[in-house]
Amino acid sequence: MAGQNQIFLGTFIHSKALDELEYFHETAVLVDKEGKIVRIERGYDLEKARENLFPGLGWSSEDVAVHVCRDGQFFFPGFVDTHLHASQYPNVGIFGKSTLLDWLITYTFPLEASLSDPAKARSVYTRCIRKTLSHGTTCAAYYATIDVAGTNLLADLCLAAGQRALVGRVCMDRLSPDWYRDADAAGAVAAARASIEHIRRRDPSGTLVRPVITPRFAPACSEELLRELGRLAAETDLPVQTHISETEAEVALVGQLFPDGGSYAQVYDGFGLLTRRTILAHAVHLTDDEARLVAARGAKVSHCPCSNSAITSGEARVRRLLDLGVACGLGTDVSGGYSASVLEAARLASLVSRHVAMGGDERAKLSVEEVLFLATRGGAEVVGLEGTVGAFEVGMEWDAQLVGLARVDAAGEVGDEDDGNVDVFGWEKWDEKVAKWLFNGDDRNTKKVWVRGRLVHERK
Amino acid sequence: MAGQNQIFLGTFIHSKALDELEYFHETAVLVDKEGKIVRIERGYDLEKARENLFPGLGWSSEDVAVHVCRDGQFFFPGFVDTHLHASQYPNVGIFGKSTLLDWLITYTFPLEASLSDPAKARSVYTRCIRKTLSHGTTCAAYYATIDVAGTNLLADLCLAAGQRALVGRVCMDRLSPDWYRDADAAGAVAAARASIEHIRRRDPSGTLVRPVITPRFAPACSEELLRELGRLAAETDLPVQTHISETEAEVALVGQLFPDGGSYAQVYDGFGLLTRRTILAHAVHLTDDEARLVAARGAKVSHCPCSNSAITSGEARVRRLLDLGVACGLGTDVSGGYSASVLEAARLASLVSRHVAMGGDERAKLSVEEVLFLATRGGAEVVGLEGTVGAFEVGMEWDAQLVGLARVDAAGEVGDEDDGNVDVFGWEKWDEKVAKWLFNGDDRNTKKVWVRGRLVHERK
Repeated sequence: MAGQNQIFLGTFIHSKALDELEYFHETAVLVDKEGKIVRIERGYDLEKARENLFPGLGWSSEDVAVHVCRDGQFFFPGFVDTHLHASQYPNVGIFGKSTLLDWLITYTFPLEASLSDPAKARSVYTRCIRKTLSHGTTCAAYYATIDVAGTNLLADLCLAAGQRALVGRVCMDRLSPDWYRDADAAGAVAAARASIEHIRRRDPSGTLVRPVITPRFAPACSEELLRELGRLAAETDLPVQTHISETEAEVALVGQLFPDGGSYAQVYDGFGLLTRRTILAHAVHLTDDEARLVAARGAKVSHCPCSNSAITSGEARVRRLLDLGVACGLGTDVSGGYSASVLEAARLASLVSRHVAMGGDERAKLSVEEVLFLATRGGAEVVGLEGTVGAFEVGMEWDAQLVGLARVDAAGEVGDEDDGNVDVFGWEKWDEKVAKWLFNGDDRNTKKVWVRGRLVHERK
Repeated sequence: MAGQNQIFLGTFIHSKALDELEYFHETAVLVDKEGKIVRIERGYDLEKARENLFPGLGWSSEDVAVHVCRDGQFFFPGFVDTHLHASQYPNVGIFGKSTLLDWLITYTFPLEASLSDPAKARSVYTRCIRKTLSHGTTCAAYYATIDVAGTNLLADLCLAAGQRALVGRVCMDRLSPDWYRDADAAGAVAAARASIEHIRRRDPSGTLVRPVITPRFAPACSEELLRELGRLAAETDLPVQTHISETEAEVALVGQLFPDGGSYAQVYDGFGLLTRRTILAHAVHLTDDEARLVAARGAKVSHCPCSNSAITSGEARVRRLLDLGVACGLGTDVSGGYSASVLEAARLASLVSRHVAMGGDERAKLSVEEVLFLATRGGAEVVGLEGTVGAFEVGMEWDAQLVGLARVDAAGEVGDEDDGNVDVFGWEKWDEKVAKWLFNGDDRNTKKVWVRGRLVHERK
């Protein structure tokens, strides 16, 4: 689907490095018909771009769509949600007094199982995609359910909506009730393959939607299943997503279920599931040795602060993981996490890092810049799209959001109530505006969202 | 200002006790011209109420305003924000990498001092009141600044907007830079008196707006100032608000500044500032002995989870305080807290209690019901309005909000995007709808807000 050549003009903000946001003002970003960024020039307005940039690209002015951000608005890279369960979306906010293992039985498995109803699956997945897009999530690593048809539907809906996604059919042949699990390892792997084939047929080059091998987590998988999924990963070179060390009870359970497997990370490694394409959600209780193993294998971590706090799993030590060389991104972990917003995940990553710091390690604190890096560029690396999305650089693709904040006038009023809760009084520096957006922003501030140059969401 | 007799019909939810929400369906709540609830009857619709309730009250149908909540909507008590700095509102979300004491110098004092400009004060205070009202805050305990005119303006603006408020002129004669502090204790007390007199003139019965004696916190006040403010409290029987034990550095500083004062709580007590009308913000690092002293004096605590996490102050042990008999409410602590929403404060109170629980004490967790109690009925007690607001009971006043949630249809769509991020799929029980509201709700869900029967906010 070829689009139009496009030029974006105004202020652009992205992560240059973990601890540094870069601000481009009066800048032109030129995006070609395939959604690729072909030029970035500072000090350009439309006229100057038309005169000096279009000819070299062979663009004619009539054929270029122009997007100018208004005063106070800015373009920001789309968010990458490195871990969420699309199938659990209707349960956001419902986790009661429970912790992980009883929460799964009480709230989660019944909902996931119910999505074998295609109409319900369509309603839930549609809403989840719309909601995440509206919050600026241009790429998501989704868990679906064990149902192949439903998983395939999720992939189809992502394609239709234009959201980049990794879509995984969940494999699990033990622990859960018999009404929601794979009968055996062979059946699970066959179902995983069926879903992989479907997704590859729909998007052969994996440009927008890719399959991901998805053992739910070690306790829910027999050794045979883990071994077979490890082989499948080696055979296909596909990404893998699973959970690790979310709660202490789960870590203890893994020790019991895999008495000869070593640490939790070693269990996955032993089955060939710790690859450079592996996304490990949570990693709250990972030891330093495990983190070193994860780093050595090039596997990545999806930090899910909202979920970890809400269901009392613990406080992931993100600084420590980064120090040990583990690449990290953010996950909303819907519905262990109550919010589908990566901006909220970034906000809570800041707070959780402060709770870690209360233990005495000042360095644990993550800055505004750092959590926004994790939400974009960090996430891109976690899902294997570093160099393709997560920032504004020539050669990258235009996955972006247009952000607008409310401007308070002298009478204490704002023009547009739909601008949400970020009130800019006019004396703020740019880094302060970004901090305000991080801490009080919501989907009202995300005015437009593009994936590969295609407009996929616009606030009415 | 006498209003109209009113009848509210539909679903009402409020806190019956700390751990119990009560649900009234198909219920009529009748509110008289003074804003007082005069009848609550279950199993009533408008017709039945007209026939059976109006005559006994001497109401004629033509003279009664009717409010019916739509299917899925409900009435909830207005929120009480027991601690926030109206003067710091423009700084929400800006706290950087700082902790309390340097944050005050870098961000807070310069902003507060700048509000001696009346135009700026009007803009900031107007926006703060509008913003808090739009989030359902029907009553707020405000810090203004040291500027008497500005403090008086804040009280006037609250009166005009119809928001219940305690408004305090801040007293501080040391610690802060000389460009933002009282010259001496006598000057501070005279300024406090001037503001008290102004507010009493404007609202002689204190029905809507009351003055509150406001020593900033012990380290910012000389012994003489604290002593004089204690005398003023005894003389006037007015409420007192201050901070206590927010950070460990502050506790240590109090120990240095008041070497003979005993504990932090004893310092206040020694100056007569620990009364049954005292609101103590934070109480993060309070010892059990201090909590017992606070409870014995009948002083109250404003728990400010957003602020405590954001500026890394620590984790208040709310369960412990409640166990020791200390009445608690919630404070947004704008702008140490980044959000002006009490719903967000309730959400974060839930999360912070889980971080406390991670230390091993499962009982520390606060439930959905408990944090909503703190946000309403608990807060009412903290500001001295128990029995007047915070719940729906005959004899109480109608401080309420109408809450609406988005209903997802079979196609995964919702009718009104302005319904925000709470998606109801239709199979949820009422307690699950409330949990969804708590965790994903925002001002978009607060459709209307009333104080003493007067409509003070309506979402367009």
